[in-house]
This record gives sequence, C-alpha cells and structure tokens, in this order.
Amino acid sequence: MYRLHMITDPSHTANLRIAIDRNSSLSMQEQIRRKIIDDIALGVLIAGTRMPPSRQLAHDLGVSRNTIIMAYDRLVSDGHLISKDRRGLFVREGMFGRDLGAIQVTGSRQSINQSVWHARLATVALPSLTSVLPPDWDQYPYPLVDGPFDRSLFPVAQWREASRRALSVQEINIWTRNAGDADDPMLVDELRRKVLPLNGISVQSEEVLVTTGAQQALSLVCDLLVHDGMRVVLENPCHPELRMLLQKKKVQITALDVDENGMQLSAEAIQAADIIFISPGCQRPTGATLSDERRALLLQIAAESGKIIVEDDCQWETSLSTNALPALRGMPGGENVIYMATLAQPLAPAIRLGVLVAPIPVIRAARNLRRITARHPALSIQRTFAHMLALGHYAALLRHVEEAFAKRMIALREALNYYLPNKISLLPTLIGTSAWITGPKTLDTRLLVKRAGTHGVLIEPVHDYYSRAVPNNVFRLGITGLVESKIRDGVAAFANAFRETMDPTPSKTNFDAAQALSGSAIKRVCNGAKLLCKTVYGDPCTIVLSRNGEMQGRAGFANEDRDHGTWWVEGDYWCRQWRQWSYGEVGRFRVVLRGERIEWFHQDGHLVDWAILVRRNKK
Amino acid sequence: MYRLHMITDPSHTANLRIAIDRNSSLSMQEQIRRKIIDDIALGVLIAGTRMPPSRQLAHDLGVSRNTIIMAYDRLVSDGHLISKDRRGLFVREGMFGRDLGAIQVTGSRQSINQSVWHARLATVALPSLTSVLPPDWDQYPYPLVDGPFDRSLFPVAQWREASRRALSVQEINIWTRNAGDADDPMLVDELRRKVLPLNGISVQSEEVLVTTGAQQALSLVCDLLVHDGMRVVLENPCHPELRMLLQKKKVQITALDVDENGMQLSAEAIQAADIIFISPGCQRPTGATLSDERRALLLQIAAESGKIIVEDDCQWETSLSTNALPALRGMPGGENVIYMATLAQPLAPAIRLGVLVAPIPVIRAARNLRRITARHPALSIQRTFAHMLALGHYAALLRHVEEAFAKRMIALREALNYYLPNKISLLPTLIGTSAWITGPKTLDTRLLVKRAGTHGVLIEPVHDYYSRAVPNNVFRLGITGLVESKIRDGVAAFANAFRETMDPTPSKTNFDAAQALSGSAIKRVCNGAKLLCKTVYGDPCTIVLSRNGEMQGRAGFANEDRDHGTWWVEGDYWCRQWRQWSYGEVGRFRVVLRGERIEWFHQDGHLVDWAILVRRNKK
Repeated sequence: MYRLHMITDPSHTANLRIAIDRNSSLSMQEQIRRKIIDDIALGVLIAGTRMPPSRQLAHDLGVSRNTIIMAYDRLVSDGHLISKDRRGLFVREGMFGRDLGAIQVTGSRQSINQSVWHARLATVALPSLTSVLPPDWDQYPYPLVDGPFDRSLFPVAQWREASRRALSVQEINIWTRNAGDADDPMLVDELRRKVLPLNGISVQSEEVLVTTGAQQALSLVCDLLVHDGMRVVLENPCHPELRMLLQKKKVQITALDVDENGMQLSAEAIQAADIIFISPGCQRPTGATLSDERRALLLQIAAESGKIIVEDDCQWETSLSTNALPALRGMPGGENVIYMATLAQPLAPAIRLGVLVAPIPVIRAARNLRRITARHPALSIQRTFAHMLALGHYAALLRHVEEAFAKRMIALREALNYYLPNKISLLPTLIGTSAWITGPKTLDTRLLVKRAGTHGVLIEPVHDYYSRAVPNNVFRLGITGLVESKIRDGVAAFANAFRETMDPTPSKTNFDAAQALSGSAIKRVCNGAKLLCKTVYGDPCTIVLSRNGEMQGRAGFANEDRDHGTWWVEGDYWCRQWRQWSYGEVGRFRVVLRGERIEWFHQDGHLVDWAILVRRNKK
Repeated sequence: MYRLHMITDPSHTANLRIAIDRNSSLSMQEQIRRKIIDDIALGVLIAGTRMPPSRQLAHDLGVSRNTIIMAYDRLVSDGHLISKDRRGLFVREGMFGRDLGAIQVTGSRQSINQSVWHARLATVALPSLTSVLPPDWDQYPYPLVDGPFDRSLFPVAQWREASRRALSVQEINIWTRNAGDADDPMLVDELRRKVLPLNGISVQSEEVLVTTGAQQALSLVCDLLVHDGMRVVLENPCHPELRMLLQKKKVQITALDVDENGMQLSAEAIQAADIIFISPGCQRPTGATLSDERRALLLQIAAESGKIIVEDDCQWETSLSTNALPALRGMPGGENVIYMATLAQPLAPAIRLGVLVAPIPVIRAARNLRRITARHPALSIQRTFAHMLALGHYAALLRHVEEAFAKRMIALREALNYYLPNKISLLPTLIGTSAWITGPKTLDTRLLVKRAGTHGVLIEPVHDYYSRAVPNNVFRLGITGLVESKIRDGVAAFANAFRETMDPTPSKTNFDAAQALSGSAIKRVCNGAKLLCKTVYGDPCTIVLSRNGEMQGRAGFANEDRDHGTWWVEGDYWCRQWRQWSYGEVGRFRVVLRGERIEWFHQDGHLVDWAILVRRNKK
C-alpha cells in the first residue's frame, strides 16, 4: 500500500559514481556496463531514469568518451536502455520485473557469503519475537492487539498547528542550533510542569532526559546500572525486550509472578535483589495495578536497604483516569526510584519520544551514554511536541483517547461476555487497553492465533512474555487499533475461531434433545426464578425472572451494572431480550436442567451459557 | 537565550497529584503544603499558575475540603500563593528567585544521596569529553570549530515545503501507522536511488537501515560485531566516541597513526586484526583521505582473510566535490564492507538521521538490536526528509553547502597564511571543513584554547582524539559554524591568542634595529630579486620583485595560484600591495638580511615572515 502514495521521481538523471578497477581482468567498458546492469536489477536505477550524457560520464569517471559510448551502445542493443530522440538514454521498463528479491545480481555481488555473516553474528543473536507487531497489522479487519493505534486517534489538526509553530523562522533558529548533548529546554520545562505532575512527579530540569521512546530509557538504565553478578528481579510475565536487554549481562534473574494486584512481592525476594524492574501502574503485559500494600512494602525495603527500583510507566497515558494511584516515583519515599514513560502513545511511531527521570548523577551518566549510542532525539520533533503541550493539545488528546478507550474496553467485555460466556476468564483489572485472558486448560493459544487469522482477527501470542512455564491457555486482546463500532464483530469472529480451536471437528453430542425441557417445563422452572452466573471478567451476576415476563439483572460486586428486559417461551425455546445487555437483541435457546444448573443451547447444538438456578419463594 | 523564545503558559491550572502517606507523622494538610512549596521551589509551579479550587483538589486527593482550605490558607499567609478576587489562588512571583540550582528543597527530597549514585555508576563512568561542543558555541564571535552549522545554511523554505507535504492527511496516515520495526520505505528507496549512489554504493532495500544519526549505526555495529578477545584496529587520532564504545569490551586495540594519506596501513597490522574501523573518505578528525594504494591493500587483505571493515563516512556530504574517490563500500571488492554515513549534516541536530549499509544478515541483527535499544527513528522525520530528497532540495542543499564551505576553506587558509606565516603547518588535505594544524614544538594547545576564548575565538582541543602520546602542539580549526565574511577577523583574533600563548611576556629583542636595512639597501637587495617561501599549507611559493616596482607571485605545486602587485620603499620600510593576496592591503615592514634569508618585521618588532632570497642575473 505504500507504493500507492510514494512519490517517485524517475525523471531525475542517474547518479553514477563507478569505481574503475584498472587492474581488473575486465575492460573498463565491461565494468561500467556490469555496474549499470546491477543497478537496474537492484532497483537503484528505475525505469524512466535518464542516463548522464556520455561526455559528462566520461569526464566524471576519468575515462575516454569512447568507452562510455561503447558501454551505452551495448546496453541499448541488449535492451537495458532505450534512446529517446534528442532527449538522451533512459532505463527501459520491465527488464527485471518487479520482484527484486529473486534476482541473481551479476558480478561482484556474488561474493557476499551470508553464512559467514550468520556465523559471526551467532554469539549475539537475539531471538525473533513472535510478539512483534506484524507490519501489515492494519490490513486485518479486526486487529484485536494492544499497542498500535488506529488512525482516528491521531490529532491531525493539532499536530499541524504545533508543526506550523515549530516551523517559524524564529523557532527554526532555535532547534537547528547544535546544543551539544542538551535536549530542547522548552520541552523539558513543559514535561516537568504539565506531564510529570500528572503522575505525581515534581523534578528539576537536571533530573530529566528526553529519550527516543521509553525503550531507549530502559536500554540506557540497563547499561548503566545492571552489572555482572547482580541479582535482578523482574515480573513474570514481562515484556521480552527487557529480558533481551539483560541477556547480555551475567546476572541472576528472579521473575516474580503477577496476579491481579501486580507483582507478587515477597520481602525475601526484594531483600535478596540488587535491582528491581517493575511496571506498577499498568503492568506490562497483564494490565494489573500494584496494590497500595505492595507499593508500601517495596518502597520501605528499598529505602532501608538501598535497592534500585526501575519503574516502567509506559501505559500511563491510557490508564490515567482509571488508575487512582500516582507513580511510585511520585509517592513519599519514591525519590530514588528511576522512572521512565512513553510520551504521546497515539503519536508513538511518528515521534518516538520518551522520558527518563532519575537522580542527577544518573541523568548525567545517561546523557553521556546517549551521546555515544545515538545522541539526543531530533530537536525538530522535541520542539513540535513541546508546542503540542504548550497549546494544550496534548491534554485534550489524553482526554479524547481515554474516553475512546473506556468505551472500547466496555464494548470488548460485553462482547466477550456475550460470545464466550463460561469459556474464558479475564484478569480482573479495570485499567488499560487490553484484556488478559485465561481459556480452558486444553486451549492451545498458538493454534488459536493461527485460527483467528483465518477469520480476519489478529491477536498477539503471549509466549514471549514468560520467563518460564509458559501457560498454553493464556492470551491477550487489545483495543487500541480498532474503533468501538467494530469490536463486537471482531469478537464474534474471534469466538468462531475460539470454538474451532477448542473443537476442530464439532459434534453436537453435548446437546441431548431428549433432555431438553418442553415449553411448559421451561415456564414452570423459570417463573420467579433467580439465576446466579458470572461475567467473563469474573463479576457476579444475578438475574431475576418475574412471572409477568419481566426480568431484572444486576452485575458487579457493588451491583453497579443493572439492566432489565423481558423473557418468554416460543414452542420449546426460551427467549429473552435485554434493554442494553447482549446488545438488546432477541436470543432464542433450548434449555437443559442438570440438578441446580440450567444450560442454554444454541440451535446448532452448542452450549451458549449456564447459570445456577435458585428457586424463589412463590409469591 | 532560549527563555526569550519560550512560550510559557503559566495561566493553566496546576496539575496536582499528591500521594498522601496516611502513616506519616506529618498531617495531611502539612504533606499537601510541603508538596506545593517543593513544586514552587522546583519551578514545577511557576508564578501565575492557578491552583485548583479547593473542592476539586479535595475530591481528587480523597481528603476533606477543610484540609485543603487550611493548607491553602497557610500558603497564602506565608506568601507562596496570592488570592485574586473571584478568580482563585495563584502562585506568587519571586518567592524563590530564578536560580533554581541553588535552592534547598524541603522535606523528602533531602533523601537523595548523590554520592551513593556516583558510587553505583563508577564502573561504567564514561570520561567527560573536552571535545564535546559547548552548548553556547554560537555565543562566541568566532566559533572556529568543525561540526556545528551556522544558521545561514539551513534550508528554511525547502524544509517547510517538505514538512507541508509530509503533513497532508494522506501522508500522516502513512507515517503514523505502526509498522513494527520497519523504516519508511519511501526514505529507504530515496536513499538507495539518490544518496548512496553518490558514494558509488548500489544496494537492495534489505541492506539498508535508517539510524538516529551515524552514531547509532556505529553503536549497533560495535555491539553486534566486536566481541571479547578480538583484535581491533583503529585510527590514531580517532573520534573518541568510537574508543568509548569499545571501552566496554575486552578487546586488544591497535591504533595506527594517520598521515596525509590516511591510516598508515601495514599488511601485518591488518592481517593480525579481526575488525578494522576506518574513515577513509575524510578521516575523523584530521580530514586526510585514504590513498588509492592503501585502499587496494586494505580491500585485498580483507577479501583474502575475511576481515571485517567498518567504514565511517560521516563527512562525505561536505567533501563530495573535492573527494575524487567513492566510498570503500562502493569500490570493486567492497561488497562486504559495513558502511555508515550521516545524512543532512546542516540539519543534523534537528533531524538526527544516519544510514547503515551492510549485508542482509547484519541488517537483520541490527534491526533486532535497534528494537530493544531505541526502535526506529521517528517516522515523521523520515518521511519529511524523504520529501527533501524527492523534491530535489537535498541535492540543492549539498551543492550550496559545498560551495559555501569551499569559499570558507580558502578564506581560512589565506588568513592563516597572512596572520601566522612560518609559525604553523597544515596537514595538506584539500578536503572537508577543517584544518589540522601543527604548531611550534613549544606550543601548549590547552593554553591556546583558553587564550583563544579570551579573544572570542572558540577552538576545539584535540587531546580526546588520541589513543596515546598526545602531541601538545596540534590543534584543529573548522569553518562549518562561521560565515565567510567573519573568517579573516576570527583568524586575526586567533593569531593574537596564538602569539600571546607562545610568548606571554612579549619582548622585542628578536628585532635588532642595528641590523635592519636602510631604504637604499632594501632597494639594492630587492631589485630583480626572487624570493622562495612556503605557505602555511606547505605549498611552495615564488615571488619575483621587478625593478619597475611590479611583483609576480606563484604558489602551489602546479603554480595554480597566481597574483601580481607592486612593491616600493618608504624611508627604511619595505612596502607591498598584492592585487588579491594578503587581502590586497598595503603591508609595511622593516627588513633584516641574514645570509640568504630575508626577514620582515612588524613595527612592533615581531617577525612576520621570512623567505630565501635568490639574486637574479642583472638585466
């Protein structure tokens, strides 16, 4: 799809700088000819490119004009170039087709021996990550992954306004200036006045370094503060890029499991550690928030025994309104915590900015290390983003994104509840932009990922996140890349993939028509019944079926989610329609009663849902 | 000076997210009050910032409104906040002055113990580089350093046009898209079709990685291809960032001296090496170009014995027209050379782009490593620069910059020749943007750097560039940051600093008035004389003084630089005026003859220049 938008300019005259080897067994004419053929095959010279005039090329290469004329003549007669009267020679169309990958390039390029390079790189080979976003993620109808942002969230007009401001002559004079290793002071001030206080963090300029995304901050900190022989504590699961950074070091890693309250901290584990990497705000990848008690424990032990805490707060922008706690770094006793965050996630691939907050000596060392590994992030970007902040556009963006994500997360949970009841359970976190989901024990998520793809649903395998004992039945669904209106259809398609994965050769034997209740039996059972069930996100749910055909539903630990609707019987089918739940649509099911358990079956025989039936006192 | 241009927005309402410690011995009111005072002292809350209404803050922090009202009241009575009728509470001006660095912040921040952090960072401490550009370099009247670019070279209109193109909705849709680890395909294609061929390099897309400046390319290559136990060959002198990157590895480094033909290669040294780092095009920092013979030797041995060559071509943009040779990577036999270059140097601090060219397995590994250390450079910048290329603005920029630099280099050499004849010698390289200069053996360039500063001249100490045996009398002058019209004045000021450094207590004893020639003696000696001298850049120079008062000058090995002028005698002074040389100005000197050597002295007694006098046959 890039090709459509690419501005190519084949009409420019080719740049040909050919090194002639005068000791070669090949004639100069032959060397020039081969180089031009190679360039055409490689796509360096594309169809329609004008060749330099022979006189000029002869002068540039320091050879006789005859040599060039002979080379050009042969290229024309072989069909590589065509002559257009009075306009010169041009590269001809279609000599090598379009698929450059398959071309055997002539001559010298054959000397590149790939296996030699593979051997040389073997000692530092990084594993290929299956969790890396495929470049074509947005070609899927339903990209249910966490991280990439759909285009509707990019603040086009606001970014343009900030760019225009940064492109005034006065501003250009500032950001084109080479200030050594310094970041844009306007951005640093905007960050410490407007952004960091959102996480409870108040710092001086000297405690702030702007980075090329939070990943660079993490990389700098690992290089500066993790040394051979150290004991390092991580979360399990944890984003694989951190484990890969530590792979180079000879350290002893303890990975502590994560539950719904974040990392399962034990005083022993922390006391034995030198450095602790943690994502307390919105754990990567599960989305859990570290509880108050664990925060207090962590900060207390760190303060007493001088542990280094590295806080990764990369999801804060998408969990600001739902997360009641400030960053660890912003809590009393958090002054020595090393803190890093992503900036402007919906703009992330475009602007790649992050921030590192640390005590001054660490920032100084990080700035020195940044100097030799990459230098500062582009100052034009720093200044443009500073204007996004100064103009208030960033604050507006955060509000807009959070609102959109809150709606999408509700849509995701409702859809999961509707299409996959009683088959999966979500980690009960109310934060972030993804659901961390455990399926049945027999689920193989690798198969699920593949099967989902055939239904147009992209989901992310989570195997790379685990240090050990990778569970086969855990997966994650995210909503950053998919607009709210498409989530239901996406989950419906995903549910089909899920069922096919669990039961590749579906049989309908789990529905026994002989056991199904008749219409009159359904009425008898349901009149005045109370049903107890659970939503996919683990909330209790109670439904009361009144005799008059009305029904009331309450879900959540505080009954905060309520709806009402009607139920009735058609033939041997139990029917219901909620006002809002289950999309307000009519559902028709066969019913089976096994002891206290009432089961609903789809017409095709598959089990849709079940509940515990509590008979109410007859009124 | 940034402050003048900074758009501050004190009128926004403060973001206050205060973590209350309910176990603290301090009351909640006291904690809130201290946090606000800290924020004011730190400059996080600046004068004029509006405080959130007490009701809102109480709600946000989950405390009673009374607590907030009490805290606010105390802050008002202590003078930190002021009340403006009906508009709320605002941070008051001037409580802490402007110098935040000196402030003792209250409370919790005292727990940051800097010495602990210094100790922790000790094992990885990078030396502070004296060669790092000071942030205030452009505050000097004469920044005679190499690297930073004066603003006149930034293509404002062109960059704006490219930016506008990249800001169309269609384009924004492309570069905001998260394409995993991929670079902008438009930029990659523009690079391999328009930029790399300028250096003789033809490659496929898969052999190209876009980096955050060439420094990131170098850092990635060091991490991937330099392993403990290897023997590494570098240049001496060499840019210190490379040595710092290698500092982390346990390698045996051989630094080969550089002369006017580049690195002094020996077959033994190369054969003993595993990997060779070299800057053959325009050596960093001397500016020498690796000769044809040494290139052939290097490529031959590398091909025979599989050495890895890493080619740093960071100066190519400013030496394109003067350097007749393509990159090593573009020469026959250079297919396995790993190549890196800076892109758009005059735009460098603003856009930070570089390129790495290497065999496909190396690029794949570098892309993986880039993923965990920083990810790709911002795609908005990549696309904007791609438009600079597509629009032809980059080619125009290269032409413009080269032309400007060629004029400046001539101005620099003429000025050095005029102000410091016979005192210094330049490495005879005709390339690049700086002069590598050796002064008298007794020169101490550290003193020279300091003294130059007092004359408004910024020059760069070169000590950091050397691996060993740092010469005290070598320095470098560059012209990237200073417009042509200011170079003469800059060198004049520098020459004063130079003289003061060489002779801090000037005496005039080297001029003996008794030995000076009288006016008639001067006439007798000079009529029809031929003078042989050398320019500061080592070129021979011949001057013929005709009886009729005319004079002819020829300089250069091919006598390519010619001028003519007049000479005459006033009293006991010899006077001359060239048409172009010596700025076409009148010079008046006393003259002493010592054997065959004729010496010219300034009125103040210092030796200006000397030459060998050849008596011509009388006509």
